[in-house]
Amino acid sequence: MLTIRAATIADAALIRRLIWELAEFEKAPNQVRNTEADIARDGFGAKPQFRALIAEWQGQPAGFALTFNYYSTWRGAGLYLEDLFVRPDFRGRGIGTALFARVARAAEQENRSFIKWAVLDWNQPAIEMYEALGAEFLDEWRSALLEGDGLLKLVEKDSAEKDSAKKES
Amino acid sequence: MLTIRAATIADAALIRRLIWELAEFEKAPNQVRNTEADIARDGFGAKPQFRALIAEWQGQPAGFALTFNYYSTWRGAGLYLEDLFVRPDFRGRGIGTALFARVARAAEQENRSFIKWAVLDWNQPAIEMYEALGAEFLDEWRSALLEGDGLLKLVEKDSAEKDSAKKES
Repeated sequence: MLTIRAATIADAALIRRLIWELAEFEKAPNQVRNTEADIARDGFGAKPQFRALIAEWQGQPAGFALTFNYYSTWRGAGLYLEDLFVRPDFRGRGIGTALFARVARAAEQENRSFIKWAVLDWNQPAIEMYEALGAEFLDEWRSALLEGDGLLKLVEKDSAEKDSAKKES
Repeated sequence: MLTIRAATIADAALIRRLIWELAEFEKAPNQVRNTEADIARDGFGAKPQFRALIAEWQGQPAGFALTFNYYSTWRGAGLYLEDLFVRPDFRGRGIGTALFARVARAAEQENRSFIKWAVLDWNQPAIEMYEALGAEFLDEWRSALLEGDGLLKLVEKDSAEKDSAKKES
């Protein structure tokens, strides 16, 4: 028997563990910098940054979905599905689709007209599941990320321009 | 002389126009479903879904940047740069980098550790600018989107499961 429920702060350790298990599946476990305390604060503190659903099979934690609000300048408000994961022992029971369907219902109830997410290009079972659901792949787009030193250097560029503007005036 | 300022509701028509000009450059002007009223409500209403910066050159609107909060389960809080655009007549003056730098400063001030965005794979000048800034391209990931009928069908799947659970109990 499957149940899907909204996560609470009591699930922070479980969510951290599931994030790590998903990252391990994605061959990047050492990329998870987020701690249990980060999850508790960012998901269930004064300014929630995300929402999570927990799937339980016979009372055992079987998977999770993690979303936040997205805004497309073309399409308007949507939901971003950052993580969707079912533990290996619980696969083949429709739990992934059930989690995704619950996310879809949340989107519909909040007048959010789309769900967006990313999948690793070698994760063929997931890609086939998404194709079967009618997903569109935005393969013309490349995702990019700036963090660490690159981000700091860019911040300094902004300060430098403000300084030179002051000197000119 | 370049100035960069936060957008207000008085900029809704301008933002809609700039979104359309960017979509035209991206060869997809008919994909813009968002109206000026949507922009006014979603950016400057009771529940802002995004923030925008306007770049002005000698008082003329020259470009814009549009962002919202992003959450990575690996990296924590970040900013998503949905649009970054400089009008063709104003290019070559560093306005794109200046807008990006202002976004980077907002991220730093809010303890958001990264900026994420997407670029069309044929937009070589933009790709080179991002590489020069130290951006990492996440080319192993494919972006996917579900909307319209596909989304509605998935919502129905959730309802169907709830009904069958009720019948079983």
